[in-house]
Amino acid sequence: MRMYDIIRKKRDGGELSDEEISFFVSGYTRGEIPDYQASALCMAIFFRGMSERETVALTKFMATSGDTVDLSRFGDFTIDKHSTGGVGDKTSLVICPIVSSLGCKVAKMTGRGLGHTGGTVDKLESIPGYRTTLTEDEFMAQVERVGIALVGQSANLTPADKKLYALRDVTATVDSIPLITSSIMSKKLAAGSKNIVLDVKVGSGAFMKTADDAKLLAENMVKIGKSCGRNIAALLTDMDRPLGNAVGNSLEVIEATEVLRGKKRGDLYDVCVALATEMTALVKKIPAEQARSLVVGSIESGAAFEKMKEWISAQGGDASYLEDTSKFPKAAHVIPIISERDGYISHMNAEQIGIAAAILGAGRASKEDTIDFAAGIILCKKTGDKVMRGDVMAYLHTNVEASIGAATERFTSAISYSDAPVPDETLIHGIIR
Amino acid sequence: MRMYDIIRKKRDGGELSDEEISFFVSGYTRGEIPDYQASALCMAIFFRGMSERETVALTKFMATSGDTVDLSRFGDFTIDKHSTGGVGDKTSLVICPIVSSLGCKVAKMTGRGLGHTGGTVDKLESIPGYRTTLTEDEFMAQVERVGIALVGQSANLTPADKKLYALRDVTATVDSIPLITSSIMSKKLAAGSKNIVLDVKVGSGAFMKTADDAKLLAENMVKIGKSCGRNIAALLTDMDRPLGNAVGNSLEVIEATEVLRGKKRGDLYDVCVALATEMTALVKKIPAEQARSLVVGSIESGAAFEKMKEWISAQGGDASYLEDTSKFPKAAHVIPIISERDGYISHMNAEQIGIAAAILGAGRASKEDTIDFAAGIILCKKTGDKVMRGDVMAYLHTNVEASIGAATERFTSAISYSDAPVPDETLIHGIIR
Repeated sequence: MRMYDIIRKKRDGGELSDEEISFFVSGYTRGEIPDYQASALCMAIFFRGMSERETVALTKFMATSGDTVDLSRFGDFTIDKHSTGGVGDKTSLVICPIVSSLGCKVAKMTGRGLGHTGGTVDKLESIPGYRTTLTEDEFMAQVERVGIALVGQSANLTPADKKLYALRDVTATVDSIPLITSSIMSKKLAAGSKNIVLDVKVGSGAFMKTADDAKLLAENMVKIGKSCGRNIAALLTDMDRPLGNAVGNSLEVIEATEVLRGKKRGDLYDVCVALATEMTALVKKIPAEQARSLVVGSIESGAAFEKMKEWISAQGGDASYLEDTSKFPKAAHVIPIISERDGYISHMNAEQIGIAAAILGAGRASKEDTIDFAAGIILCKKTGDKVMRGDVMAYLHTNVEASIGAATERFTSAISYSDAPVPDETLIHGIIR
Repeated sequence: MRMYDIIRKKRDGGELSDEEISFFVSGYTRGEIPDYQASALCMAIFFRGMSERETVALTKFMATSGDTVDLSRFGDFTIDKHSTGGVGDKTSLVICPIVSSLGCKVAKMTGRGLGHTGGTVDKLESIPGYRTTLTEDEFMAQVERVGIALVGQSANLTPADKKLYALRDVTATVDSIPLITSSIMSKKLAAGSKNIVLDVKVGSGAFMKTADDAKLLAENMVKIGKSCGRNIAALLTDMDRPLGNAVGNSLEVIEATEVLRGKKRGDLYDVCVALATEMTALVKKIPAEQARSLVVGSIESGAAFEKMKEWISAQGGDASYLEDTSKFPKAAHVIPIISERDGYISHMNAEQIGIAAAILGAGRASKEDTIDFAAGIILCKKTGDKVMRGDVMAYLHTNVEASIGAATERFTSAISYSDAPVPDETLIHGIIR
């Protein structure tokens, strides 16, 4: 078998056999197939697509290209969630404790933030003491005992995807539905959960800018997940504006505790309840309506917040910060952004707001950058809100005074106004089961 | 400027600017742009194509990526010929002396054989003493004095094309019209001739298997050549069967002398006259009919054969071998292939016959292989010929007895028979001016 023939076959619209896909994945992972052939194949896949069978094969071979997590001891109770990434997306911090409090087992590996989106591991690290690395025994024991453990991604999981994604990132071959699907789903398969809920973000702050593209991706991922033997559902949720009001690491942890303590409603609450409902319904095999009342009950009873504290403590974090969020260090500079006009907010470019937060210190431009946990943005107005000249639109939090000008400019240019009232944006664009 | 953005623009159907193409060619030649980005771009070009302006820019930037030959001292009399490659294609040996005898200046660089097609330089090396490398001064002086010099390709001509072609060859991105065009035409531009005639081969032994594909390529090359300021024409000639009767290096030189001495007519003669006619018409700016009578006159008067001997002698070769071709060493084994049935030859797969000749020692499988100048095949029957059981179809010439079995099998499987007479195949499929 020759890589040349595989590239040519795909280029000419052929369907690759499982053996050909396996040959590519294993050869590329071992470094026997060079990057220049892999990138040519990815570009051919970009144009020609992949059948369901091909995508399943690519997903499975990438999933088993390195270590895999065996969660079989937890039976069918394991649940994983994956978000395609957004700005202010702290849903994992809210929903993992909720579903865990309802008996689901959350054994989750998650990523760090890069570019305009934050990462759950970074947010958790803003809690003093939280350990983002556990041994396998510690990880399993904590899932068993507490029902939830959440760590950074292991270096040995899906090396094929790591290598291929890095290549796609520099060869303009990222945005291909079968390649995105196999990248995400291979990681989910390797992570071992029986049940998976996908949060596919749509809008200006998301990878998928339109609902049609997001739906196509979600449908494909659900199909592939089922073909790989998982119970799976996907929600299409809005990321045309940031989710919730906080963007930045400790600021988002604080907002998550507010939702879990029943103190905060709105878009973040609604998306978290919707996701937790799907997860609970999937694990417990119950109707969504019944799952939803369990989820709401878990928040209202305080069980979910208790589970969050139990989890954070179990993993070394100081849970007193969750009880008294004023203990989190404050940024040296908290600068209001004042509206210079009357009107309605017609649009907030979530990606630009994410970049503004990163400029303030909340994110990384490259993997080596360090994060300022206190930095970020608190939004006081969101899309649809009426504003008057002089109103505070947002507060910028930073320890780097020199960043304020650029962040202010970036934030201000991200906001569009309208003279007329703006209709409510859809929050949940669809559910694919 | 970033290579990523260039790949993405082409991937999405955009037209690259001259600056972007220059950035790619110079960055890739210098090794600053990695192979994996270049191969992704080539695959995007395969799918999206290139406009005439883009192809001209790519051609020009590749042409000037290394040394270029300045033939301006010869005014508008310089003529180059390029064949897309075929089996038994010894036309350069015939037509260069013809047009040179008519006052055209032939300052030609040409390649070695690889795979199933032979190379003119290899054929010339079968003449004892022939020097395929000349200094620039020797080269220019010989063109001035004799009107013809023919050497191997310089290492410093079009390094961008050399590097990119090697990459395309292993990433299934060779067969793209704009990439083929820019590869061929950049070499022709760098080689400096004012007038160019292209021999685009069509059929089983050619790169282009169909007349439509060949026509498209020829039209594109002529258009690009004109846009780059050259006088140019293209002939589409048959390569569905080998050209002439000899395949193999000294065997082809002998056949070339027979044509030039007026001893041989047939497909080789016809194609050579057609090509020489176009070349002469282009250089002298005269009608084809007039050029054709000059060409035929040059053969019949012996002027062309005298010019061949003068050229070979000037370049160090022993021209007595041309006068008395029995001086060429004979292969130790000359094996007849006998027809096992009656019928008409309906098809000869030229590529397979080229491979059979290579197996006998006439060609190279890799660049490092050496060539046996005496090895090859003499065809006694060609497509359309009637054969009787027991007739000699061909003679295999080789010094390696062990190769005979495989070559016989390859040759035999390349021949198809018909019970009914077979219509004449078209020899010249078209002329594009």
